[in-house]
Amino acid sequence: MSPTRLEAFSDGVFAIAITLLVLEIHVPTNQGENLWRALGDQWPSYAGYVVSFLTIGIIWVNHHVLLDVVTRATRALLFLNLVLLMATAFIPFTTALMADYLRASQGQDVAAAVYSASFLLMGFSFAVINLYLQRHGDLVAEVISEQERRRRVLRSVIGQLAYAVAIALAFVNAYLSLGICALVAVYYIHPGAPLTAES
Amino acid sequence: MSPTRLEAFSDGVFAIAITLLVLEIHVPTNQGENLWRALGDQWPSYAGYVVSFLTIGIIWVNHHVLLDVVTRATRALLFLNLVLLMATAFIPFTTALMADYLRASQGQDVAAAVYSASFLLMGFSFAVINLYLQRHGDLVAEVISEQERRRRVLRSVIGQLAYAVAIALAFVNAYLSLGICALVAVYYIHPGAPLTAES
Amino acid sequence: MSPTRLEAFSDGVFAIAITLLVLEIHVPTNQGENLWRALGDQWPSYAGYVVSFLTIGIIWVNHHVLLDVVTRATRALLFLNLVLLMATAFIPFTTALMADYLRASQGQDVAAAVYSASFLLMGFSFAVINLYLQRHGDLVAEVISEQERRRRVLRSVIGQLAYAVAIALAFVNAYLSLGICALVAVYYIHPGAPLTAES
Amino acid sequence: MSPTRLEAFSDGVFAIAITLLVLEIHVPTNQGENLWRALGDQWPSYAGYVVSFLTIGIIWVNHHVLLDVVTRATRALLFLNLVLLMATAFIPFTTALMADYLRASQGQDVAAAVYSASFLLMGFSFAVINLYLQRHGDLVAEVISEQERRRRVLRSVIGQLAYAVAIALAFVNAYLSLGICALVAVYYIHPGAPLTAES
Repeated sequence: MSPTRLEAFSDGVFAIAITLLVLEIHVPTNQGENLWRALGDQWPSYAGYVVSFLTIGIIWVNHHVLLDVVTRATRALLFLNLVLLMATAFIPFTTALMADYLRASQGQDVAAAVYSASFLLMGFSFAVINLYLQRHGDLVAEVISEQERRRRVLRSVIGQLAYAVAIALAFVNAYLSLGICALVAVYYIHPGAPLTAES
Repeated sequence: MSPTRLEAFSDGVFAIAITLLVLEIHVPTNQGENLWRALGDQWPSYAGYVVSFLTIGIIWVNHHVLLDVVTRATRALLFLNLVLLMATAFIPFTTALMADYLRASQGQDVAAAVYSASFLLMGFSFAVINLYLQRHGDLVAEVISEQERRRRVLRSVIGQLAYAVAIALAFVNAYLSLGICALVAVYYIHPGAPLTAES
Repeated sequence: MSPTRLEAFSDGVFAIAITLLVLEIHVPTNQGENLWRALGDQWPSYAGYVVSFLTIGIIWVNHHVLLDVVTRATRALLFLNLVLLMATAFIPFTTALMADYLRASQGQDVAAAVYSASFLLMGFSFAVINLYLQRHGDLVAEVISEQERRRRVLRSVIGQLAYAVAIALAFVNAYLSLGICALVAVYYIHPGAPLTAES
Repeated sequence: MSPTRLEAFSDGVFAIAITLLVLEIHVPTNQGENLWRALGDQWPSYAGYVVSFLTIGIIWVNHHVLLDVVTRATRALLFLNLVLLMATAFIPFTTALMADYLRASQGQDVAAAVYSASFLLMGFSFAVINLYLQRHGDLVAEVISEQERRRRVLRSVIGQLAYAVAIALAFVNAYLSLGICALVAVYYIHPGAPLTAES
């Protein structure tokens, strides 16, 4: 299979997953009198929407940087890519879970931990694809420099570590956990970040 | 990243967001006897569907006019575009909110204001991309004429102002607010409108 | 705007609308003991799924036949196409309405009439695009023969008439109305049908 | 119609169906205290997500292998392909059905049988396309070898048989039935499998 088709299919799944996020935000029912307040009360839904949207958007960009140099798609690459898509398409669920429980008196720790864990899983399956392509130089058109390779590994490790910290912190303070996920997104988007992929 | 991929991904999100609008229209339950009436009663859902569909459709057209001349996508452009997509993909939620509360005895003001505000946000994030590209002439293949530039700025300002008025009027009359949003769509679609983008 | 983009965007909306149909089929709740029966009882949902899926599929094929020869997209064409997409994306709602009320003691007439009417609307907005392109020969690469033109008009008229009959018959027998919609789909798909578009 | 468009449209439906799977996983309500347990209890939803995601992913890959050599799309091929897409887009429903009833005291047999049957239907409609293309050599660019043809037929038959067994076993043990569906996916993905399509 040509890598172009692989990218097109992946783009489709990324675009759909990112747009489905909105379906998990619900219109408050029978809150006419207090609609401002009811809308404000579900701020975790909006925060989750923004954080998940940006994070999936970043994965989409990085996915292109990674696959743009691939000249041939093996069965193993197809499968590893499918796992990444599976992890990504799962995020609308974990986002809804986090949003529904963040302000609850109980369960907010579990919900925030699962939310961070879904980002860790997505990042990890991305890292595996990266590793696979580095080990199979015959599949890529241009070998990246050793410096660039280190940069990418470092970037990947930092992301994974931050999400791991977010999982642990969820049991201390769920808001803090969400905050770290948001920070990771901001960090990767920042143009000055030395650890991000070239665009 | 090539602008082609950026456009393709954006097209995907626009197409999905526009099609998801229908999921917010609900089948009336247990209304066998009065189904005509029950269907008629939810006219705000149909009105919202049409207005939001046309407005997202217009943004899609304008997005193409804008990005067709871009030759290179920077990280900043990717991010600004992601913000526009985030605002657009949010519209199915605000459309459902408006439709659910427009005929309620209370809350219709808030719902109509949020609905208009989501259009303002979409238009504003589009205007920011426009501005960014005007400031970075090296990213576009052909510089537009000063006359065309003014036309676009004027068009953008008129749209933003109309949506701002719609937000304010929501607290006077929610129907009027929805009507203005509809008028903006009709105005931009009208072939004779001197302020619209060339097709 | 190039017609290629117009087609790609339309393809996206057709593909999404056709796939969203499944979301309107609901899993019966708490029917463990009688799951076979409960699943069988919602046969209108499956019938609606098949009929709507095939009908949208046919419109997708015909849309390609129509737009493949277009060399330039005008603002009017963009708008007319947007109306067709709006009518198509609405069909998951009317399908759910028909499925929910077909076996109800009341309301089945209204539901079946609205269902047929949504097909009429889709077919009508398609016919308008067809008419527009026939009147603007400068937009198409090759003028179709007079014979082919008549065939298309006849095909279009037959479809419209059948759907009009289905609307009227809905008030006599809702099942009959659904049956006519199914027959129209079968008729258009049949390879021997002299009135269908070339593939 | 060019096969490229056919593939692009099919890719869209596959990508949407695969991503919609997540919408059938529901956030447990009011389970703050026992959220871990409540999340764990709905493991059939996650299992169904993974199995259905992989199976649709495999069909997508095989669909490409099959259609990549097609040079011309006939009306019959368009229709057969539409049937395959219809079967595929139906899987989010059968997945939700299986997940909802797998752990119920009653109905798990029916749910698991319907789930396996939807895979059988998808595989069968794929086999019909395969057969159609083998009988119409004028539609394909390169005729596959007799050895490859036999391999594909054998692979297809094995898949169909395994799903048929899964349907029958559903009435003995529903978990076993789900396990077989999972095994079929793993088998097809395995790079060493002599019966799978080249990638």
